[in-house]
Amino acid sequence: MVFFHQNQWNNQQNENYSGGSKFISAKAGKLFNFMNYNFSDKVKDMRPSAIREIFKSLTDPSVIAFAAGNPSELSFPVEKMKNIAEEIFLNRSTEALQYSITEGYPSLRKQITSRLKERFSIGIENDSVIVTTGGQQGIDLTAKVLCNEGDTIICENPSFIGALNAFRSYNTRLAGVDMEDDGINITMLENALKTHKNVKMIYVIPTFHNPSGITTSLEKRKAILELAKKYDVVILEDNPYGELRFSGEEIPTIKSLDTDGRVVYCSSFSKILSAGMRVGFLCGPNSIIQKVVVAKQVNDVHTNIFFQMLVSSFIDIYGLDEHISSIRGLYRKKSSLMLSRMDEKFDKKIKYTRPEGGLFLWVTVPGCDADEIAKTALGYKVAVVPGSTFSPEQGKKSSSFRLNYSYPSDRQITDGIDRLAPIINNI
Amino acid sequence: MVFFHQNQWNNQQNENYSGGSKFISAKAGKLFNFMNYNFSDKVKDMRPSAIREIFKSLTDPSVIAFAAGNPSELSFPVEKMKNIAEEIFLNRSTEALQYSITEGYPSLRKQITSRLKERFSIGIENDSVIVTTGGQQGIDLTAKVLCNEGDTIICENPSFIGALNAFRSYNTRLAGVDMEDDGINITMLENALKTHKNVKMIYVIPTFHNPSGITTSLEKRKAILELAKKYDVVILEDNPYGELRFSGEEIPTIKSLDTDGRVVYCSSFSKILSAGMRVGFLCGPNSIIQKVVVAKQVNDVHTNIFFQMLVSSFIDIYGLDEHISSIRGLYRKKSSLMLSRMDEKFDKKIKYTRPEGGLFLWVTVPGCDADEIAKTALGYKVAVVPGSTFSPEQGKKSSSFRLNYSYPSDRQITDGIDRLAPIINNI
Repeated sequence: MVFFHQNQWNNQQNENYSGGSKFISAKAGKLFNFMNYNFSDKVKDMRPSAIREIFKSLTDPSVIAFAAGNPSELSFPVEKMKNIAEEIFLNRSTEALQYSITEGYPSLRKQITSRLKERFSIGIENDSVIVTTGGQQGIDLTAKVLCNEGDTIICENPSFIGALNAFRSYNTRLAGVDMEDDGINITMLENALKTHKNVKMIYVIPTFHNPSGITTSLEKRKAILELAKKYDVVILEDNPYGELRFSGEEIPTIKSLDTDGRVVYCSSFSKILSAGMRVGFLCGPNSIIQKVVVAKQVNDVHTNIFFQMLVSSFIDIYGLDEHISSIRGLYRKKSSLMLSRMDEKFDKKIKYTRPEGGLFLWVTVPGCDADEIAKTALGYKVAVVPGSTFSPEQGKKSSSFRLNYSYPSDRQITDGIDRLAPIINNI
Repeated sequence: MVFFHQNQWNNQQNENYSGGSKFISAKAGKLFNFMNYNFSDKVKDMRPSAIREIFKSLTDPSVIAFAAGNPSELSFPVEKMKNIAEEIFLNRSTEALQYSITEGYPSLRKQITSRLKERFSIGIENDSVIVTTGGQQGIDLTAKVLCNEGDTIICENPSFIGALNAFRSYNTRLAGVDMEDDGINITMLENALKTHKNVKMIYVIPTFHNPSGITTSLEKRKAILELAKKYDVVILEDNPYGELRFSGEEIPTIKSLDTDGRVVYCSSFSKILSAGMRVGFLCGPNSIIQKVVVAKQVNDVHTNIFFQMLVSSFIDIYGLDEHISSIRGLYRKKSSLMLSRMDEKFDKKIKYTRPEGGLFLWVTVPGCDADEIAKTALGYKVAVVPGSTFSPEQGKKSSSFRLNYSYPSDRQITDGIDRLAPIINNI
């Protein structure tokens, strides 16, 4: 994930006083006459990330970026994409540059539908697919069409900050349920379903969870689905990393177990082709997807059609399997490198997950405040994301932090772990 | 309530019983157990457009498409875009395919800021620019950050359906104020500001208005701004067509008259470079834009970065003026062709606007229901959009309809008017 910069306001105020610009000085007398803005209840308390210093550091090349959520640049099939882009400009430029339909490029929707069925056994009667502007838009609009302000969404604790903030932006309540080594705590999940009012949705990332790297067991997947049925709520299954398994056994998605149209499945091409192009998708019950279409129509009309066509041609010409296999190999290597260095350098008291895929692992330093660890690490030019960031309950301390191994180079992985080790070993 | 397309449902039942697919037949017993979906109050009454038959007809090549809002495909600078795309893949592929920042590609933001200042005298202290996924996202997120459910947004009547539906999707109330030949009725505007509760925003398209083609006079622009000040509300000025003046004198934007940070200005590159790429922007008070950044972060993280870079390079290498000038010439010709044919063929009782730019003109057949006209016209293979579609008050009849001249070919323009004339002359 990419976060934003927020010192602009101060900089701009200073600029005004410096009088350096004629344009500004001509209006300087009006400087304090600006109207007061009343923001909606939905967003008035939303602020750019409290840990923006950490994310800002990602643009500093001297900082080792374990804080990113970026795929490796080696995962972008540049040559192939370039050739397809050229072909589209040559033969299909009108279609690629003109307005298109909200549901998504028809060929791509078909390809997604087929792949979901073949690869993940996903797709039952009345399911349909919509192409979204990244997985993020799928999460945002699913919450928009299902939740009123004040409704409750149950989330794993910790969970993906982008989803939590999307839910907050509709003024929903978040109920966090703690994660265990094999997924969400099922007793606590049932308790949350029992005690919270107007629970509309359970949001889970069962495979290579962000931030923890944990994969939810099949038993727990079944239990989550059973509880969703029992308490009649929808499950939003977010699976952006599902293609990136580099060890262990495939586990069925929750969506593949869905028999009553209860699961909306969200994913994207961000981690397998390009994150910057913003092409994701939802697969869910047609009546939910139809509402998402209406919401997307007024949100951005449709997703960049050129890149929808590009992805579709990529799948047509090359398929996805070979390319995904190379990314798996890359991340297997990078995660092994990071873990073996951690095994070597970290004190025994320090616990960490050993993910079977995805981009992240999760380090716990018992009894410590990871906000402090992150601050100290940044002083040593290593950026990590403290666990508090991922808490559905805002401001809650955590003794864990997230490490990303997809983005840093091999050299940065070993150097970064070497710099982290003394900080956390000696706390 | 569960609703299915009856045919689909039947087909699927047959498939199930045919046992053709193991996957489906295994679940046949559960066929009638689909859950009931409770949609949010925001979207539960939102439906795909009631005139979707008309829009569906746009894909039928035998229908003359006066109903579109599409730019001419001749307005896409394909060769230049192709060359830039190639250069980006060659030299800057990592940046173009990786995650980027929410505010937008920094060079493009600077270029937009400069052009707004030079071309439209837009930009005061504390204004800033965010790149959005089309102008549509700018409209959607401005409403999201400013309006609670039940708040009122004042709109021109008629107005752009995409904006009206975006506002509806946040459960706001719409108060329509009638348009006159020189813009919104100012007395009625003040009355609306006085009588409606919690008015947060006035939404206007002062230049080459969609759907009417009307340009609001300078006097009325000033009056709208004064009333916004008096009643302390924000103005959202939507100006997607502002670059497309082909006759008459330039009139200052409302935003250029803004001295107290009251106006959010929305536009895009959809009508001057490519609609399908979805690159638009907002310029407004920094504190509003910062909230939009937060809302965009959770909506789609950022706009397709490849095309942001492409637009930026286009401006760098070629500038916009020459290309825009050619589009103006094209639409001058097309609008003249349509108007002169209408002058020749339409009965004197029929009134229509003579726009000085943009994509649309507005035809009024006094005493008639334009829904009926549109239906009849479709029978003669001409698609027009009836005025009822553009009403802030849903279901309100209108004696007017919208014609688009940018998308149809010259031949289609004359043929289409020839087919329309007998229908509306003889009512």
